Amino acid sequence: MSAGSAKRPGRPRGSSDTRERILTRARELFARNGIDKTSIRSIAAAAGVDSALVHHYFGTKQQLFAAAIQLPIDPMTVLVPLRDTPIEDLGHVLPATLLPLWDSEMGAGLIATIRSLLTGSDVSLVRSFLQEVITAEVAPRVDNPPGTGRLRVQFVASQLVGVVMARYIIGLEPFASLTPEQISATIAPTLQRYLTGELPGL
Amino acid sequence: MSAGSAKRPGRPRGSSDTRERILTRARELFARNGIDKTSIRSIAAAAGVDSALVHHYFGTKQQLFAAAIQLPIDPMTVLVPLRDTPIEDLGHVLPATLLPLWDSEMGAGLIATIRSLLTGSDVSLVRSFLQEVITAEVAPRVDNPPGTGRLRVQFVASQLVGVVMARYIIGLEPFASLTPEQISATIAPTLQRYLTGELPGL
Repeated sequence: MSAGSAKRPGRPRGSSDTRERILTRARELFARNGIDKTSIRSIAAAAGVDSALVHHYFGTKQQLFAAAIQLPIDPMTVLVPLRDTPIEDLGHVLPATLLPLWDSEMGAGLIATIRSLLTGSDVSLVRSFLQEVITAEVAPRVDNPPGTGRLRVQFVASQLVGVVMARYIIGLEPFASLTPEQISATIAPTLQRYLTGELPGL
Repeated sequence: MSAGSAKRPGRPRGSSDTRERILTRARELFARNGIDKTSIRSIAAAAGVDSALVHHYFGTKQQLFAAAIQLPIDPMTVLVPLRDTPIEDLGHVLPATLLPLWDSEMGAGLIATIRSLLTGSDVSLVRSFLQEVITAEVAPRVDNPPGTGRLRVQFVASQLVGVVMARYIIGLEPFASLTPEQISATIAPTLQRYLTGELPGL
């Protein structure tokens, strides 16, 4: 496969054997060592290819991670715009952004991915994603008093994961039939308290 | 097997083939029709035994359900004492009761059950349990304004399911290493608001 053909828009071309081998090795290494401690170089070595080829096919390490766990969207597409949201609005903006996405067609793929990761031995990939992508992105902004930021984000994650489970995986009624706005409005004060409220005992 | 041997303390005796056949049919019927619409009689008929034998081996329908999904504890053991808890205390008493239970050895069996139900085709059993046991038990007490009780309970369930996922299944750190008291204290105001607070838009 030439670099030229690989640069066409849409799904990158290339030897699908090679792509699949890279994704398999990436999944194994991410599952074993987490995202931070896994390098593109080590994945390339495990797959018997050059690092440049991995970058060429998949982009950044986080994009490779997203491809490895079959996320239908690069998480940074959602997270980067949130950097401009004041922290006192995050409790509302987070679910107002995520619920419509999860309800969408793209969300169906995401839910399928979450479900299959939770069921398999790859639950560590969900852990890495929440700890090393989500927590790392948001915790420094809400680390007040110092040392509480990671826990604040993880309480938020617990409520959001619970919504995913109740709405999409368990399909609890009437919860699953609420509008995205109804869910967002109801959980927003919870998320905001976890992010910036008093949390005695933590 | 005589009734005498089946009445010995500890695990009920009896033809283990018959017991297993009843449990298998119970699981199928509960999964297909939910708990309310499944009768002991229909389970007995499907298993080719008398209803009295099903009662004799497993007790009430809810105890049979608990056995069928391999719950290590009859849910009513937890739910019945909560009937005496004033609703304005439930937000705290609920997690303060559940977290130590989930952290216990008995909880390990429960978590294993939840995980295997979520992964299989039997996710409908979790739905039945939450909708027909938990929601039905608590909703009438918090149905204010009328019509909101079921949703109030299901928002509580979403947060509690999220805690189970984050703490026991995903193993998010440092969240998973908090004490039960730290988790209870942090989520109690959330649960209380869902149960008795203003929920605009619902």
